[in-house]
Amino acid sequence: MSDMGEGSRAGPVLALSGGIGGAKLVLGLSRVLGAGSLHVLANTGDDFEHLGLSISPDIDTLIYTLGDLADPIRGWGRRDETWTFMRALAELGGPTWFQLGDADLALHVERTRSLAAGESLADFTDRIRRRLGIATIVWPATNDSIRTRLHTREGWLAFQDYFVARRCEPVVDAIDYEGAATAWPYAPVLQLLRDPSLRAVIVCPSNPLLSIEPMLAIEPLRDALRDCAAPVIGVSPIVGGKALKGPTAKLLREIGEPVDAFTAARRYRGLLDGYIVDIADSVVGFAPSCARVATAATVMDSDQSKERLAQQCLRMADALVAEKCEKRAMQ
Amino acid sequence: MSDMGEGSRAGPVLALSGGIGGAKLVLGLSRVLGAGSLHVLANTGDDFEHLGLSISPDIDTLIYTLGDLADPIRGWGRRDETWTFMRALAELGGPTWFQLGDADLALHVERTRSLAAGESLADFTDRIRRRLGIATIVWPATNDSIRTRLHTREGWLAFQDYFVARRCEPVVDAIDYEGAATAWPYAPVLQLLRDPSLRAVIVCPSNPLLSIEPMLAIEPLRDALRDCAAPVIGVSPIVGGKALKGPTAKLLREIGEPVDAFTAARRYRGLLDGYIVDIADSVVGFAPSCARVATAATVMDSDQSKERLAQQCLRMADALVAEKCEKRAMQ
Repeated sequence: MSDMGEGSRAGPVLALSGGIGGAKLVLGLSRVLGAGSLHVLANTGDDFEHLGLSISPDIDTLIYTLGDLADPIRGWGRRDETWTFMRALAELGGPTWFQLGDADLALHVERTRSLAAGESLADFTDRIRRRLGIATIVWPATNDSIRTRLHTREGWLAFQDYFVARRCEPVVDAIDYEGAATAWPYAPVLQLLRDPSLRAVIVCPSNPLLSIEPMLAIEPLRDALRDCAAPVIGVSPIVGGKALKGPTAKLLREIGEPVDAFTAARRYRGLLDGYIVDIADSVVGFAPSCARVATAATVMDSDQSKERLAQQCLRMADALVAEKCEKRAMQ
Repeated sequence: MSDMGEGSRAGPVLALSGGIGGAKLVLGLSRVLGAGSLHVLANTGDDFEHLGLSISPDIDTLIYTLGDLADPIRGWGRRDETWTFMRALAELGGPTWFQLGDADLALHVERTRSLAAGESLADFTDRIRRRLGIATIVWPATNDSIRTRLHTREGWLAFQDYFVARRCEPVVDAIDYEGAATAWPYAPVLQLLRDPSLRAVIVCPSNPLLSIEPMLAIEPLRDALRDCAAPVIGVSPIVGGKALKGPTAKLLREIGEPVDAFTAARRYRGLLDGYIVDIADSVVGFAPSCARVATAATVMDSDQSKERLAQQCLRMADALVAEKCEKRAMQ
């Protein structure tokens, strides 16, 4: 951890993130920024009810990653996990298509109990991250329900049915974020986006369709992002024409979106001030809607590479601000 | 297991049981009776909601005991249990006064889910015991809610608050079975009690106040027990003037009931045809309301002693029937 360097320069930073991929950059940002200055807006489109429990996979991945509780091998869930519950559930004939570790269960049971008692998802998440000693603030995009669903030849599939039960195999021709049209963004995020001290917004290299766009589908949130004075920096989730993990490329192709280094920039058109593509993608290209482009090593396979990419995002944001100031001074 | 001998003689047997103590005799009965002829009526007065989960401690103890899943050392819960969930829950600041093992949790999660989906407690219990290959039929006394509560100087305490959180320390001056007055017995038990083929009813040596009387407080059930043609045999939970385990003696004294070999017979006055006291209690005594008395070794510390006591209960029941027939023949 470093309270010096990048973190000492300026005000709060907001990162938009899904689960595993985004959480890597979030971890990098949390390590280069001072305690408490990083805010993460987490996708809740993957949230669902299973076994009567309220599960928020992306929030949980962020919490486990930031709390140093994540399993580094499996890539999801907690480390030092046991699986006695799942074995007993199978014995009783319960549904086993969604794996829940014994320790992981505690978070879902506590969340379910708290939501039933009237606590909001945001308040619950904040209580837990404080309890686990996590300085980074994790916010759900909204306290209202958003449910990503995917249209296939079999009709609409709920996200987890598609993603886990069906392993992303059905061909998708449309995606919908149920509830997003009427959802209200979590109020403090709108406040932060209007805060003149906001240093940067980082759109993590998460799956655009499944992790970032469920948040952008909340109109007042999208508007606030577009109107915010701080530079908004996107990082491409496509490296060398491929997604590093998950169904990103397959899904993009299925809905007719070309898969390249600028896919995310096109999807986030009108929102970005800066865009980072991987060094592997030294193709001639230009970012849509006049976003500045930089290249960086975006593959985050070590703490060092996570921190380095975080620093490059912040450096790009700071440079864009400096440039704007210069322009203003010249006018 | 033996399908011969005691089991081959006659029709179904009904046992009334609480948790651990009663489950020992139930196990003995299940081993000496033929598959499917033993029915157990389980106390639900200890049932409660915890962490948003529906927990039925006595049903669970019976299921685990009959399914050969019970922990033989701890005396409650499942064997080969792990405790990762509780550790994680403590880490999150959740309530830890009630211990739930990881495998045990599966049963509570499945029950909660099933009850929420509209399945009755009886149907759920039956589905689970079949799934676990348990031939003995386990019924809740009622599908309606009964909640045992205890009055102390601090006011009313819910059963688990008294029993687990407070370790039975507060002095009790009254006990109430909330919901019992309006609860309806599980219909098949009334049918069984009217069945002319019913061989015997065994009231297990469970705590009268906490395990048996919550069931007897359901009036139509008590009436059906009183009117049933089959012999009703009680087994004393007091051995040598002491309860083998738990708060039975302390609680009886606090509500002003003398603690001796005939305590249970007095509490079940009007219901019993036969009563078994321990060989340690070779005091001169008589059972209230003309129940016949026999002595037996009632301490069940081995499978053999459980089976032996089960056989003695059945023998006493069969002898009472034979005697009645002889009387009738002489008239």
